[in-house]
Amino acid sequence: MTLKNLRKDNYPEWYQNVVAEAEMAENSASPGCMVIKSWGYGMWERIRDIFDEKFKETGHENYYFPMFIPLSFFQKEADHVEGFAKEMAVVTHSRLENKDGKLKPASPLDEPLIVRPTSETIIADSFSKWIKSYRDLPVLVNQWANVVRWEMRPRLFLRTREFLWQEGHTAHSTAQEAEEETLRMLEVYREVVEDYLAMPVLVGRKPEHEKFPGAIDTYCIEAMMQDGKALQAGTSHFLGQNFAKSANISFVNKNNQPEYAYTTSWGVSTRLIGGLIMNHADDEGMVVPPAVAPYQVVIIPLIKKEEDRAAIIAYVENLRNELKGKMPLGDKIRVKIDLRDKKPVDKFWDWSKKGAPVIVEVGMRDIEGGNLMVRERLKINTPEGKEIVAKEVFVSTIEERLATIQKQIFERAKSRLEQNIRTDIKTKEQFAEYFSNSNEWIEDGKVGKVGFVRGKWCGDPQTEEILKSMKITIRCIPFDQSNSEGECLLTGKPATMDVIYSRCY
Amino acid sequence: MTLKNLRKDNYPEWYQNVVAEAEMAENSASPGCMVIKSWGYGMWERIRDIFDEKFKETGHENYYFPMFIPLSFFQKEADHVEGFAKEMAVVTHSRLENKDGKLKPASPLDEPLIVRPTSETIIADSFSKWIKSYRDLPVLVNQWANVVRWEMRPRLFLRTREFLWQEGHTAHSTAQEAEEETLRMLEVYREVVEDYLAMPVLVGRKPEHEKFPGAIDTYCIEAMMQDGKALQAGTSHFLGQNFAKSANISFVNKNNQPEYAYTTSWGVSTRLIGGLIMNHADDEGMVVPPAVAPYQVVIIPLIKKEEDRAAIIAYVENLRNELKGKMPLGDKIRVKIDLRDKKPVDKFWDWSKKGAPVIVEVGMRDIEGGNLMVRERLKINTPEGKEIVAKEVFVSTIEERLATIQKQIFERAKSRLEQNIRTDIKTKEQFAEYFSNSNEWIEDGKVGKVGFVRGKWCGDPQTEEILKSMKITIRCIPFDQSNSEGECLLTGKPATMDVIYSRCY
Repeated sequence: MTLKNLRKDNYPEWYQNVVAEAEMAENSASPGCMVIKSWGYGMWERIRDIFDEKFKETGHENYYFPMFIPLSFFQKEADHVEGFAKEMAVVTHSRLENKDGKLKPASPLDEPLIVRPTSETIIADSFSKWIKSYRDLPVLVNQWANVVRWEMRPRLFLRTREFLWQEGHTAHSTAQEAEEETLRMLEVYREVVEDYLAMPVLVGRKPEHEKFPGAIDTYCIEAMMQDGKALQAGTSHFLGQNFAKSANISFVNKNNQPEYAYTTSWGVSTRLIGGLIMNHADDEGMVVPPAVAPYQVVIIPLIKKEEDRAAIIAYVENLRNELKGKMPLGDKIRVKIDLRDKKPVDKFWDWSKKGAPVIVEVGMRDIEGGNLMVRERLKINTPEGKEIVAKEVFVSTIEERLATIQKQIFERAKSRLEQNIRTDIKTKEQFAEYFSNSNEWIEDGKVGKVGFVRGKWCGDPQTEEILKSMKITIRCIPFDQSNSEGECLLTGKPATMDVIYSRCY
Repeated sequence: MTLKNLRKDNYPEWYQNVVAEAEMAENSASPGCMVIKSWGYGMWERIRDIFDEKFKETGHENYYFPMFIPLSFFQKEADHVEGFAKEMAVVTHSRLENKDGKLKPASPLDEPLIVRPTSETIIADSFSKWIKSYRDLPVLVNQWANVVRWEMRPRLFLRTREFLWQEGHTAHSTAQEAEEETLRMLEVYREVVEDYLAMPVLVGRKPEHEKFPGAIDTYCIEAMMQDGKALQAGTSHFLGQNFAKSANISFVNKNNQPEYAYTTSWGVSTRLIGGLIMNHADDEGMVVPPAVAPYQVVIIPLIKKEEDRAAIIAYVENLRNELKGKMPLGDKIRVKIDLRDKKPVDKFWDWSKKGAPVIVEVGMRDIEGGNLMVRERLKINTPEGKEIVAKEVFVSTIEERLATIQKQIFERAKSRLEQNIRTDIKTKEQFAEYFSNSNEWIEDGKVGKVGFVRGKWCGDPQTEEILKSMKITIRCIPFDQSNSEGECLLTGKPATMDVIYSRCY
């Protein structure tokens, strides 16, 4: 099996193969759930640590709330339960018993428990106990957790029944402060996703029918995959007083009057790793931006004669330690020496398929010459793909090298995004014709058949049906509105609002 | 409410109050589950990071496996299901539906799913796919996750239905290698729990009836709480080929013969935080060892005149940054400036109840004199409790100060443990008399009424019943055996094996 051509001919299969060959995740015996393998989990650890630092810098603290939510809690907020009821894992028993050699559920619970699809309801219950006065506000909480949504068509990282995420939950004494928080965290998402995951995004507000169930406003960052489809990469919700009213989060304000608090919630998940793959991977497999790579430099020792082993190992360990002393991107360089019992060429292709940013080969001749064979993943099939670099130079320039790679990966994705937002589609007919095409892989630096359309929307609720029938979505209402007059691309009616249309994951 | 005397008169209630006043955790609306608050979760983050580094240093990588385990997986290993069947959360439905305004579980699953009580069965299934040849071994996996055991008498941190833990799972080509791994990880547990959590432990093997369900051998570290009861702080299991046979983890060995792999598993949990409390807290509340304290130094600015505010804030921020530059205990100093709208004296008592190791107060007079008011949590009620220290001296000696506090906390607990292991109880009658006493708080440096007994055990399975009736357990068979002759403290029969007897959590 080769990834070549597959990306063009069968993009979904290419995706699956990249995940498998990079050993990032796989399907498990537990239906619809995945096993995240170390290379994929290592990216999640990096993503978690980067976000965690930003959340703490913006005043949030980590808590942990129960994953089981009493069913009655969902009865409280009508929109919320409506949004999630169809995809909930329900715990009904607390024991197994052996009946004629077969295990059966036993001891039914008085009240069924829901495995959290999201934690607004149970966290609101805690907030209602903690918040009494305006002096108790704001409450700024984050949680790293697993959540469950019963997806019927699971796909690794993109849609699995269980996934890992972070969910921020905050309460404030004024609507304005809560709205500011919602947008502050959206900006944290944009910053981390662009600067560390190297995924350029569009930023905006969701239309009414795409809002989080129970929210007043949902804001989002939206990325473009290599096939021109959108991936929602993070959302931030202004919940107004909806959850405060249903859970009774009330406080005495500065005027000594009782008032409901204003809450927010915001989350990103392991779905981001799916985004990394569909933004950056290529015909050779995965490409990981250095800032989130579990290992940024992989060293492969070339041991031709057994008597050289000790000298080569000592040399590469010393090289690793020199590199680790460097501190780029706010952290130590992450280095792996691959000592597996395997041919060097096979090791090289393993790490290449995993997308390690820099692979270094070191043999006795290199050591004698004071050189290293350096191969950057991005240049793998180019004439510059093999570089002989003096060891001292390699060590002293590793930070710039990784920063340059990070930038190259981002620029490539940014150029794809910018080139594939059509702004010249002005009529309903042009729009229908554009989306009569199927999405397919867009070559680097090219304009593909289908990408995003930035155009007018009349905002009429009936357009939801039209979108459904065309299998197209409104990704967001961008913050930068032109306010010009035009024709709604769905109904042909006069419209001024600019929105982003596209197919999506 | 005061904690004074409570520790002596009602140790369990003292424990609850310490947890509540330190704001470490609380009961939640989800039955038997807890909300871990930021001060408790911050300790867990530290514990996680320390262990994680040690696991990676010993060659393990983090993975994530599904939390839902198909019921049939438990049918495979008889002892294993026997051990956990009575306390399992069972998911039976995947949807809620609205029936006459009431939400009811709908869409029953073909096969019920168990929320993992531990992951041997599902991880063994993955191992069986990954392992084909001796070249694929060893496989060294760790997972950070939530697990569920349906406790009927929950207690914060010690026994909750959901808790957080780490579980290591490894597979090896020989029994010897797997046994070495089991003991290697036990030693990692001992090291981290003693050196970072400052909890001295006894190390040994569990008797047959206390083994992990499905294990050949279970090893453990056991700590003594302030009331002389034992807390199992970590376990490491040699599973032999039991799970390999039930899940078919087989490989072709070096002689080209098929063979079942040898597996291990090992875990520690948020229970350790309960151990921290019952080892170190006192009449004033929690005491956190610096190595696992979310904040090691808390700075309280004393602002008497509003016009001094800017100068004082600038000064303490500068102090924080100077302290953060220091790198003790393998990490940056963790500093908090408490800017809450609250009286300084109330802030002081808040942090004191939380057990922050060092609390520094800074007012305008201190700044002018170049001094700081330094208060160590351990010395809170002693004449040395208030120290005036020149700022430069405080900053330059903070590492030694924290290291000294860490040592003092450990030594205090170690002295309690050592003084309260009775080795002079030689007969059944003496033993029965000793344990006719109830456990109660043991004053620092004193011998309490009830602690541990190190004495003989004949090993007869019938002694299990005697232990149950006396509500006493055998904590471990220590590695350092005397091999002397004596009388079994339960049956009076001749016996040579030394064991540790005690009541436990």
